Amino acid sequence: MSFDDGCRDGPVLIVGSVAYDSVRTPFGEVQEALGGAASYASVAASFFAPVRLVGVVGEDFAEQHVAALARRDIDLAGLQRAPGKTFRWSGYYEFDLNQAHTTATELNVFQHFRPSLPDSYRDSPYVFLANIDPALQLAVLDQVRRPKLVVCDTMNFWISSAKEKVLEVLARVDIALMNEAEARQLCGESNLILAGRKVLNYGPGVVIIKKGEHGAIMMSPGSYFVAPGYPLEELRDPTGAGDTFAGGLVGYLARCGEIDEEALRRAIIAGSVMASFTVEDFSLQRLFSLKPEEVADRYHEIIAMTRFGGF
Amino acid sequence: MSFDDGCRDGPVLIVGSVAYDSVRTPFGEVQEALGGAASYASVAASFFAPVRLVGVVGEDFAEQHVAALARRDIDLAGLQRAPGKTFRWSGYYEFDLNQAHTTATELNVFQHFRPSLPDSYRDSPYVFLANIDPALQLAVLDQVRRPKLVVCDTMNFWISSAKEKVLEVLARVDIALMNEAEARQLCGESNLILAGRKVLNYGPGVVIIKKGEHGAIMMSPGSYFVAPGYPLEELRDPTGAGDTFAGGLVGYLARCGEIDEEALRRAIIAGSVMASFTVEDFSLQRLFSLKPEEVADRYHEIIAMTRFGGF
Repeated sequence: MSFDDGCRDGPVLIVGSVAYDSVRTPFGEVQEALGGAASYASVAASFFAPVRLVGVVGEDFAEQHVAALARRDIDLAGLQRAPGKTFRWSGYYEFDLNQAHTTATELNVFQHFRPSLPDSYRDSPYVFLANIDPALQLAVLDQVRRPKLVVCDTMNFWISSAKEKVLEVLARVDIALMNEAEARQLCGESNLILAGRKVLNYGPGVVIIKKGEHGAIMMSPGSYFVAPGYPLEELRDPTGAGDTFAGGLVGYLARCGEIDEEALRRAIIAGSVMASFTVEDFSLQRLFSLKPEEVADRYHEIIAMTRFGGF
Repeated sequence: MSFDDGCRDGPVLIVGSVAYDSVRTPFGEVQEALGGAASYASVAASFFAPVRLVGVVGEDFAEQHVAALARRDIDLAGLQRAPGKTFRWSGYYEFDLNQAHTTATELNVFQHFRPSLPDSYRDSPYVFLANIDPALQLAVLDQVRRPKLVVCDTMNFWISSAKEKVLEVLARVDIALMNEAEARQLCGESNLILAGRKVLNYGPGVVIIKKGEHGAIMMSPGSYFVAPGYPLEELRDPTGAGDTFAGGLVGYLARCGEIDEEALRRAIIAGSVMASFTVEDFSLQRLFSLKPEEVADRYHEIIAMTRFGGF
């Protein structure tokens, strides 16, 4: 099920939530479907590289979901099972699918989650810290040995409640991911370019700002890249788009092991491709049915729709 | 002041408002500065091709503004001078510069404007109908002889008050320009891709949807193109960005005389470049100081920030 061209540098460690989501959109709804940032990111990354998942689920976590993740070659040695119920999120989207409205968050077993890495995970060369409590992100970084690349995500909740910890994380990562509103919030700066530059000052060599349907931009001190949104006719549920993007991005980078401007640009497109599939259906349904050749085809579609000639 | 490579197909006729704008943004303000869709579009187009302007001004229209337009090689034989005052618009922008708030609109001489083309304008091969009353757009089309390319813009006001006339215009143009909200409003469709496809069903071979800071997309029955927004650090006043984009686009197409997918893509980038300069300062100040080599440089910057390699 993965791309198999012998070009693979090493596993990707992914830490974040594994959840049961209840989601309603104008196009349908699901109850207690598999979700969580680590689930989306891990499945997306698994198309490109082996994945090691770190997270926690409750006693109610279904065997079918364990099996579905394992079938994607995701190492689940780091998936703790704790007494109690799995983390649950309920929300809905109006016709403006860019905005999630939360109706309920039940932390359950996630409330006391302390990431503890199996020994076999400590040498992971690629690390993705999904948008959990920055204190936990730091706890994971303390347990890995000299990773080659660390990517973090964050969210508005942590920026307002634990900004100092968020900044501590930013000082220890190579690539920071956030969305437009989070970049503006973190930096107190409405101009996105100036906000991005401020994020770079906090430490990461690269910041990638996600703009939902409008794509993403990447900034580093010497470069700027803008990636388009894929034009979706079938957009049923945006949940997990950002996490899928991140997983696809890190997985793609792990696949080849180069981390330069060119590889980063291709990785952003690969992440966008993966996210464009996720939102075509609820939960991880589309990712679970996705074929590698569909990924490659859509990547080439994006090339075709962005090319233009010289002045 | 124009690009002079001998590659020029013919003049662009531009009809629309010439106005005095009073604008306040978080970065400053101007009182009764030169504005109006036809002013922005004409000056932008004049970088690429000769322009013929059709519009109306009042007795108060300053000679210095006539002279400023004339210096750009804009033919003003079609600029009527009527008894009364020039059209005035007042508005402001909050920190979200994507949204203009109108405080006053005084139509003045524009209220009774009936476009009447000088004989010398009737053979114009390129026509841009800015966002005036669709009845007036049709009146202009009735006066030109077999133009090679007709491009129209529109706005929310006409879509809600004169939708049938807007559709009549769309049936007679080659390229329809509108912004995201207008496309959704016109088609009653929240998905932008589906909305774009509906616009094509109304007649134009190409629809270009402007997305402000997020760039633009172009759709035709067989193709899709997405152009990035230029990352602006100095964004002082977004007034006229859409009109400048349109003028740059049509001017660029007129410059070479080819109207195929490749030329359209380059024209969209050229239009984006022109718009990115307009918003750097109030009124047409930046366009009036702009040098052709700055246009070419920024075009190449956009190439550099969008390129990425194969999968």
